[in-house]
Amino acid sequence: MGFINLDDLKKLPLAPGISARVISAETFTVAHVTIAKDAMLPEHQHHHEQVVNVIEGEMVLTVEGKTYRLTAGQSFLLPPNMPHSGMALSDCRIIDVFHPVREDFKVANFDGYDNK
Amino acid sequence: MGFINLDDLKKLPLAPGISARVISAETFTVAHVTIAKDAMLPEHQHHHEQVVNVIEGEMVLTVEGKTYRLTAGQSFLLPPNMPHSGMALSDCRIIDVFHPVREDFKVANFDGYDNK
Repeated sequence: MGFINLDDLKKLPLAPGISARVISAETFTVAHVTIAKDAMLPEHQHHHEQVVNVIEGEMVLTVEGKTYRLTAGQSFLLPPNMPHSGMALSDCRIIDVFHPVREDFKVANFDGYDNK
Repeated sequence: MGFINLDDLKKLPLAPGISARVISAETFTVAHVTIAKDAMLPEHQHHHEQVVNVIEGEMVLTVEGKTYRLTAGQSFLLPPNMPHSGMALSDCRIIDVFHPVREDFKVANFDGYDNK
């Protein structure tokens, strides 16, 4: 794949106010996610290990009923199959890393929320 | 590991002017790297697949004799065992993702350049 300009990647709508530009490597996925203030990601889980990295903004992550406030310079490691939900307290920029590859985030497979 | 405050992680000196705070997940590594202007990462290679993500600043990445200028919002996918080198054109913030885990980036194993 080599050089990647994020603006050239299709923007996948993950939920109202939440979209991602996704880099699918062979062995993992890097999702550059933007979240509008007050947007919510409903509770969900997946078999992928995930690291959430907050680049800009402030969000709340709820894991096992416990709420964490995450701001730029903070991250969260989610083991596989751990239910979690999120809400943005301000406009946020996040980089989510998943292993194995999020096949459902590949453009050809993507069947998520459509905000058009 | 759960919640991670990057400032609480040990800063690993990777080369003169280059340091990283490293999140070791079970299956991959996320390195939050800072590179000072003009700092150079000599050519090297590793068996890990890598995605370089530029968050701030501008750098040059050289891969197979070809030079790429990367700025914020640009990334580069390096397959395993691909020799590469880098130089920062300005102070940079990068997020490097590796699979499998960079065992050599775990604090207990780290034996890199020491700038003290």
